[in-house]
Amino acid sequence: MKSLKERSLALHKKHKGKLEIIPKVPLETNEDLSLAYSPGVAEPCRIIANNKQEAYTYTTKQNMVAVVTDGSAVLGLGNIGAEASLPVMEGKAVLFKAFANVDAVPVCLNTQDADKIVETCKHIAPTYGGINLEDIAAPKCIEVEQRLKEALDIPVFHDDQHGTAIVTAAGMLNSCRLLKRSIKDLDIVLCGTGAAGHAIAKMLNALGVKRIHAYNKQGVLSEENIAQYDNTIQSLFRDGILASPSEPRKKSLSDLMKGADAFIGVSVGNLLDEGDIRNMNDSPIVFALANPDPEIDPKLAIKAGAAIVGTGRSDHPNQINNVLAFPGIFRGALDARAREITDEMKLAAAHAIAGVIDEKDLRNDYIIPSPYNKRVALAVAEAVRRTAKK
Amino acid sequence: MKSLKERSLALHKKHKGKLEIIPKVPLETNEDLSLAYSPGVAEPCRIIANNKQEAYTYTTKQNMVAVVTDGSAVLGLGNIGAEASLPVMEGKAVLFKAFANVDAVPVCLNTQDADKIVETCKHIAPTYGGINLEDIAAPKCIEVEQRLKEALDIPVFHDDQHGTAIVTAAGMLNSCRLLKRSIKDLDIVLCGTGAAGHAIAKMLNALGVKRIHAYNKQGVLSEENIAQYDNTIQSLFRDGILASPSEPRKKSLSDLMKGADAFIGVSVGNLLDEGDIRNMNDSPIVFALANPDPEIDPKLAIKAGAAIVGTGRSDHPNQINNVLAFPGIFRGALDARAREITDEMKLAAAHAIAGVIDEKDLRNDYIIPSPYNKRVALAVAEAVRRTAKK
Repeated sequence: MKSLKERSLALHKKHKGKLEIIPKVPLETNEDLSLAYSPGVAEPCRIIANNKQEAYTYTTKQNMVAVVTDGSAVLGLGNIGAEASLPVMEGKAVLFKAFANVDAVPVCLNTQDADKIVETCKHIAPTYGGINLEDIAAPKCIEVEQRLKEALDIPVFHDDQHGTAIVTAAGMLNSCRLLKRSIKDLDIVLCGTGAAGHAIAKMLNALGVKRIHAYNKQGVLSEENIAQYDNTIQSLFRDGILASPSEPRKKSLSDLMKGADAFIGVSVGNLLDEGDIRNMNDSPIVFALANPDPEIDPKLAIKAGAAIVGTGRSDHPNQINNVLAFPGIFRGALDARAREITDEMKLAAAHAIAGVIDEKDLRNDYIIPSPYNKRVALAVAEAVRRTAKK
Repeated sequence: MKSLKERSLALHKKHKGKLEIIPKVPLETNEDLSLAYSPGVAEPCRIIANNKQEAYTYTTKQNMVAVVTDGSAVLGLGNIGAEASLPVMEGKAVLFKAFANVDAVPVCLNTQDADKIVETCKHIAPTYGGINLEDIAAPKCIEVEQRLKEALDIPVFHDDQHGTAIVTAAGMLNSCRLLKRSIKDLDIVLCGTGAAGHAIAKMLNALGVKRIHAYNKQGVLSEENIAQYDNTIQSLFRDGILASPSEPRKKSLSDLMKGADAFIGVSVGNLLDEGDIRNMNDSPIVFALANPDPEIDPKLAIKAGAAIVGTGRSDHPNQINNVLAFPGIFRGALDARAREITDEMKLAAAHAIAGVIDEKDLRNDYIIPSPYNKRVALAVAEAVRRTAKK
């Protein structure tokens, strides 16, 4: 059998890409064409010209999301540029349709300048009911999203931040349900403070977690060194979201792991060993989400006493996969005609994902639903729609 | 029965717009998803990162056209803005698919500044195999197209200019075939010098027409007044495309019509009367293309002696309709992977449209194929592809 790489290439080549744009209206007769195009089409144009909101009634805007990237941080491949990011953006669009009947199109930009990304998105925005930002490098992505949220009246959502944070939070909520612990009491080590790490910290804080200690390439993060960090990390300390280590002499990731209740890694592979897990508190939760190699081999983590282990990989149990969040998030936001995706909507989504598994069905190797469970998007959409309507 | 307006509104509302984005790849199993998305998708990304041209092999770019507008000159509705132009752009995308299997998506811009339109198109270009500019006001549209053609390595085609010009040229070629005249010998009055008029003048000149006399809101255009005209008209005189009237005392459109062989109107309704047609040379050709009201009622023109009458309307014979050109043009350009749509490709398209009607089948009321004749796009695509390959 051919390798996965070869099979994927063959699939993309055979189908000539993964998306097709098709008409939803009949086009058989002259009458059909005179209604869908000139002269009949002038009437919806006139109505929308009088009231822009009518675009949601008469056009595809009501169900159309742009998947926008600058190609600067694509999968684990890094800065590969606009053209090379197209297969991922098309894949994302495919998932939007398959899981939530959202029509999505890639928009791959050949600029990586924050100002120009913002400007371009503002110019193309009228076409879409929402913008899903994707694979834009941190910390730029945080600024770009914030500026677009302020400028536009459609939902803007950077999936690498919030998608990951929502699904991670859902996994943490269910871990606590299974282990009969309160999430608020957890002492959590967060390894990695890029797009995903930033959003995870904010979301856990919103869930009441008080002790989030972070580690990145600069080492253990502590408020006393705040001047050395970028703006996004500084704001996490200023907002009381990140906490300095309990003892100032904790200088290494191994130091930080001692006595922690949970570990969340969104960094790079193979940073931890069995000893680090053994040094954690009783029944620790370990989410080693780096791809393709987790921060610790999940089998080693279990052997060393981890009560629950999650990864980003499809070949292990408890896969923390964004596809559990983004299709339902946008489905719910579009259905509610929400102007933005608020923190409340994101929290509702996390609870909805967690709630798909009944308490009696929770197991150490089943704290998060399968990415292919189609009930998840429905539950997320409903929770997001309801929260948006409030 | 409900009116056309009501039926069109009902259609747009019922279908929630006219476009749908669907996956072309199977998505049933975990294997399907691991090939279409992570981790398999990384392989086409890697290959394209090494060679951008491979995007044409592994992504939808090979068949994807952006229909870009700023909403500044939509149908006969004028400057109605981005949102209100969406139904037209969706309609255009529908026609692209139905007539030539081109995947097309609307991109409606909320800027009407030429620099920003150019900048935005450059930023989003990697996503698409071509850009169809649409309903952008003249003379801005001519500058925008020219700058984008120079900046981008994908075909850029402003349909309101060249689509109209190509189909008009095809109609003129077939009129000459039927009337046994040489197009080069025609004395033509061109009424309207906006996007379409500009391109028609250039195309007729490329077909060898030496005497094109133009009229617009400023009156009869003459080289002696060149300083009063905008850049695009000045360049038509400088390039020897427009000619001053044969007698300087011709000051009105009626004066200009005297002794002319053909009239082409791309202006506004009801500018001519029967007397103007009677004053033309023997067996005159009258293309009164203003919409919804032609420059002269076609029945009056025939009564006054016009040999051949064409309009832009579907309820009269000889409809000069852009849909005869743009789907096949882009089909051919994409198939040839052309980097631009050259004048030679446009001329080949005009000849291909004309050639769809055999000489023995030509009649005064059948000099142009029906817009619903699916053979046209095939013939145009083949002619454009062959010309591009040369």
